[in-house]
Amino acid sequence: MTGMTVGFVGLGAMGQGMAASLLRAGNRLLVWNRSPEPVAALVAQGADAAGRLADVFAAEAVVSMLADDQAVEQLLLDPELLVGAKAAVHLNMATVSIALAEQAEALHTEHGIGYVAAPVLGRPQVAAAGELNILAAGEETALTKAAPLLSAMGRHTWHFGTRPHHANAAKISVNFLIASAIESMAEACSVAETHGVRPTDLVEMLTGTLFPGPIYAGYGAMVAERRYEPAGFRLPLGLKDVNLALTAGAATNVPLPFASVLRDAFLDALAHGDGDKDWAAVAAVTRRRAGLPR
Amino acid sequence: MTGMTVGFVGLGAMGQGMAASLLRAGNRLLVWNRSPEPVAALVAQGADAAGRLADVFAAEAVVSMLADDQAVEQLLLDPELLVGAKAAVHLNMATVSIALAEQAEALHTEHGIGYVAAPVLGRPQVAAAGELNILAAGEETALTKAAPLLSAMGRHTWHFGTRPHHANAAKISVNFLIASAIESMAEACSVAETHGVRPTDLVEMLTGTLFPGPIYAGYGAMVAERRYEPAGFRLPLGLKDVNLALTAGAATNVPLPFASVLRDAFLDALAHGDGDKDWAAVAAVTRRRAGLPR
Repeated sequence: MTGMTVGFVGLGAMGQGMAASLLRAGNRLLVWNRSPEPVAALVAQGADAAGRLADVFAAEAVVSMLADDQAVEQLLLDPELLVGAKAAVHLNMATVSIALAEQAEALHTEHGIGYVAAPVLGRPQVAAAGELNILAAGEETALTKAAPLLSAMGRHTWHFGTRPHHANAAKISVNFLIASAIESMAEACSVAETHGVRPTDLVEMLTGTLFPGPIYAGYGAMVAERRYEPAGFRLPLGLKDVNLALTAGAATNVPLPFASVLRDAFLDALAHGDGDKDWAAVAAVTRRRAGLPR
Repeated sequence: MTGMTVGFVGLGAMGQGMAASLLRAGNRLLVWNRSPEPVAALVAQGADAAGRLADVFAAEAVVSMLADDQAVEQLLLDPELLVGAKAAVHLNMATVSIALAEQAEALHTEHGIGYVAAPVLGRPQVAAAGELNILAAGEETALTKAAPLLSAMGRHTWHFGTRPHHANAAKISVNFLIASAIESMAEACSVAETHGVRPTDLVEMLTGTLFPGPIYAGYGAMVAERRYEPAGFRLPLGLKDVNLALTAGAATNVPLPFASVLRDAFLDALAHGDGDKDWAAVAAVTRRRAGLPR
């Protein structure tokens, strides 16, 4: 039992499970969300509803899990909000840009609030089980304050240093690697299929030998079976993350030829109406380019 | 104990271990190699040296493990050799092109010899232990004849159909996926490093979460530590295999944008003198492009 008062912002599919994990660990939770339904669900589990966003920042710690840079900037990087804050630390667990992390770090420091970047690996059901892998970075005192909350939400915290944006760079790298694995399997399955190999046989061998693990097995099956629905992670979010990698590379002059290929493939997928599909649907681009049936 | 008389051609680093596995399983072995030293090593283990290549084809079965298309064409796709052959089946275990597999299949069929393509996954020490993963394809009668030999050399045989080239297409796909994993880790490590992340921390997290297995762990460590020697698999062999993928794609009009990126990166590495390094040295290209120290 950690027993802190925690403000929680952003009760999407991931945030709901993370907030529930914090409640189960014995914290008092003040929740805020743009739409009211998820708030009611958390209140039913023992959380209190925050009347205003400012109330959340009156808690001992704030955890936020918003969709993207824009949502974080609009809602949380508000000097008026931060100037009245009592929270000692803010854990931003969203996948955001390196530039936004640097901006957020500066603004929080200015207002005497610790800022920890703690993006996560795992789907909503993993979040609900409190079994996320968490990539964390920030000042030591802020991280110490954050540790019991991170332990409540994740099975393991991976540390990336004292500047918050380090963790965002690591998370952006992970998502770029997932997208690259999908694209490479799409290319491999397409070329193998045209030479008589059943893609499901290929993926079974790959995941049974050199490429075990959830990414090759999960996305490999989706690619081989051309199963792009239901969307576990929507294609536009994949493009967002590939663009985060390209922007990170542009900031430090690091050419990323695979990321450039991925960007064009995701745009191609959107142009052909696959915006509501899982990002595995980037495989449909490979097939269309090769004149293969969808 | 299988107890067949087996001719074996090609005692390179892989072939030596595979031939030794066949001996251990109780087969009588007639070995032939272009250079004499490895022959002596196998004779010391109980094999007989074949005087001429034709003697090898007088055995009940032939197993070959040559370096590339050129070696197979020069040595084995010789109508004079095959017309006098007594062997019921030839297992070609090299990583060769789809076109060569089709040509070899036709020529063997013409001479009444079964032809099985059985390229392998695994390093020399895995071959020596008889623990390879074998990707096999061919006619059922030929495969049945080959089965005890494959069992002696590998821990598992993955089947890809009745046309030999199916197995070559699968193997080419595997090597393309390995090269893609190396390139994507090189890009991820470079961009993360420029934003303050230690590449070894990134790879430790990746392999401890979503990307377990020997490829991400082994090549990830080499990329993160910039350790490209000793060469487990030399860079020109990697380029050969990427070109096999591109050629396979060209034959059936399948654009492979990742493979095209890889081709240029491997050429770039060769142009900068890394031809004796492991193919993980393609990561040095990513770093050079970004102006990072080697």
